[in-house]
Amino acid sequence: MTYPLSDQDFTQRVSDELTAFLDARIATLEQIDARCGELATLVRRFVLDGGKRMRPRCAYAAYIACGSGTLEADVNKQGIVPHDNAVRAMAALELIQACALIHDDIVDDSATRRGTPTVHVKLAREHGAQHLGGDGEHYGRAQAILLGDLALAWADEMFTGALLDTPGALVDAPTGDAHAVWAAMKTEVLGGQMLDILAEARGAADLDTPQRVSRYKTAAYTMERPMHLGAVLAGADAATIAGLRECGVNAGIAFQHIDDLLGVFGDPAVTGKPSGDDLREGKRTLLLNYALAYAPAADAAELTGLLGRTLDAAHLARARAILEDSGAVAHVRSEAERLSAAADATLATLDLTSTGQNMVRMLINRAVHRTF
Amino acid sequence: MTYPLSDQDFTQRVSDELTAFLDARIATLEQIDARCGELATLVRRFVLDGGKRMRPRCAYAAYIACGSGTLEADVNKQGIVPHDNAVRAMAALELIQACALIHDDIVDDSATRRGTPTVHVKLAREHGAQHLGGDGEHYGRAQAILLGDLALAWADEMFTGALLDTPGALVDAPTGDAHAVWAAMKTEVLGGQMLDILAEARGAADLDTPQRVSRYKTAAYTMERPMHLGAVLAGADAATIAGLRECGVNAGIAFQHIDDLLGVFGDPAVTGKPSGDDLREGKRTLLLNYALAYAPAADAAELTGLLGRTLDAAHLARARAILEDSGAVAHVRSEAERLSAAADATLATLDLTSTGQNMVRMLINRAVHRTF
Repeated sequence: MTYPLSDQDFTQRVSDELTAFLDARIATLEQIDARCGELATLVRRFVLDGGKRMRPRCAYAAYIACGSGTLEADVNKQGIVPHDNAVRAMAALELIQACALIHDDIVDDSATRRGTPTVHVKLAREHGAQHLGGDGEHYGRAQAILLGDLALAWADEMFTGALLDTPGALVDAPTGDAHAVWAAMKTEVLGGQMLDILAEARGAADLDTPQRVSRYKTAAYTMERPMHLGAVLAGADAATIAGLRECGVNAGIAFQHIDDLLGVFGDPAVTGKPSGDDLREGKRTLLLNYALAYAPAADAAELTGLLGRTLDAAHLARARAILEDSGAVAHVRSEAERLSAAADATLATLDLTSTGQNMVRMLINRAVHRTF
Repeated sequence: MTYPLSDQDFTQRVSDELTAFLDARIATLEQIDARCGELATLVRRFVLDGGKRMRPRCAYAAYIACGSGTLEADVNKQGIVPHDNAVRAMAALELIQACALIHDDIVDDSATRRGTPTVHVKLAREHGAQHLGGDGEHYGRAQAILLGDLALAWADEMFTGALLDTPGALVDAPTGDAHAVWAAMKTEVLGGQMLDILAEARGAADLDTPQRVSRYKTAAYTMERPMHLGAVLAGADAATIAGLRECGVNAGIAFQHIDDLLGVFGDPAVTGKPSGDDLREGKRTLLLNYALAYAPAADAAELTGLLGRTLDAAHLARARAILEDSGAVAHVRSEAERLSAAADATLATLDLTSTGQNMVRMLINRAVHRTF
């Protein structure tokens, strides 16, 4: 094995680590009761069947950029978590993501994720197929809440386990630092999600709220903190950490802007969810709020009227036209380009390994030019 | 301050640790957005307004029983987590409990907890009072799912933080052991809850399923693992740990049996929830399943017909009479007494400090003779 791992080898390793961990945990549940083990395979399938491994990849890129990843050299280096433990810790990010998505799909009443039924919908269907008692939707939600909790509990077990299993690293600062970054990330993403739901319910029409939601729900969680984590695991200095975090914030907000565009204009075959889903949910994106602020009053009123319900093709086309004509689409796209360029510029000023710098640059660019 | 702490001083210390931790976390959320901070105060109020601190008390009793708790002597003793860090780690159990209860109340559609509205109901009412958009019940559930997640994320942060903050303890086995106990406990309680919901939906009428649910959902989580944790934090040997766990399993199942009796016969003023709630939920307790197995067929059929709906006083009285007449009440009560006596007998064989042994004994007895 050569280090750093190629993108393909890294994502394979992440899947292998997750498989090994989840198999062991499901075996524990089977000891409680075979039926618990069966239910938990839904978490395993969810984690292993899909996902772009975006967060672990951000963490790994930063880890390599900060000079780590040559296995032998690092194992005994004070303050650096060695390669294989670091990768296992990064893989645990996918379990937080599993919790976030399983619970988010309940919160958003989403029926489809990655082109297949969401976990609570699958469970509700099993309820029907097995002729269980009580309300199927309620059953699906209940078990899915617990499966999400299980994913979150397991995320911590896998992450902290990888650090505790790090000989020598325990007495150094990075373990505590890594734990603090991990903890901060969870608080931020949950805070961002809470704000998102509140903004939807309030019909918040300002431009600041969507920015804050993007900052915490997406940027901190998807890029900034994973990069921060990778840098800490590599024992990076404060200036490098600050620089990488800045890259992550800007690229992460850009990522959310593109996501908002895809949420209305995306091809369901690519995004795995129905086009216009964001409008149905009444999600308060910069795209929407910019249009509401700058479209002619009649258009803005019409757009408001289209929120919060399932749109037919004609209504969806009309909503799209208003978003385009108001300049919101162009604004959001140019904001994404600007932020991505800013992230690139910051990256260029940092003292990083050239391999790692290229890995980070590729992730920044992909955040805006989404091909994965 | 004298050690070990009195029951009153200990519960005060637990509240103080939780207050300090939660204040800091809420301050972090306020930096994201003031409204997020406001939402999170629901978690703080939930944690600080109620609860008997059962799990931290079990952990502390075991910790003291295993010879720890005299501050100066322990701080530098290899392999033992010192008193104040140990207490902080134990206090974190209350945050897991907050997640479990907040999510459980959604799962069970419960409106009342500890005599006040449940978190999702409070949020739904705020939704109405603030004239927010969308469906209030859906909003309440969505935010409550996230607040439960926050409590679980914070539990791990507080627990692992307390261990990482333990000078000297990091290089020794107990930190890793304590983390493994903590992780196993979470998997077990979630597995037990999943099985509970499944048993309800299947209408499982066997006597084995309720026992398994009690074993994992209650005994492991409420007594066995907290005692295990306390013993590990004190650096106890394997035989002592095994003995304390056995006490915890037996006393914990006894605790659940009494809880089942209270769930049908309890005074709402004492239990904080409506009498007969377990029947309304169709919860598959040993009490219920024993009655279904041993009552005359006509009574069993009548009892089955009373499940899963809100009962008026006459119907509740009839359900109670069937449970009594079938011998289920006497059976469950005598099982609880038997298990509690077995726990006492095991406890007497262990090599423990006499103070700690008394503390554990009191908790075992209280599990059956519930006065708190």
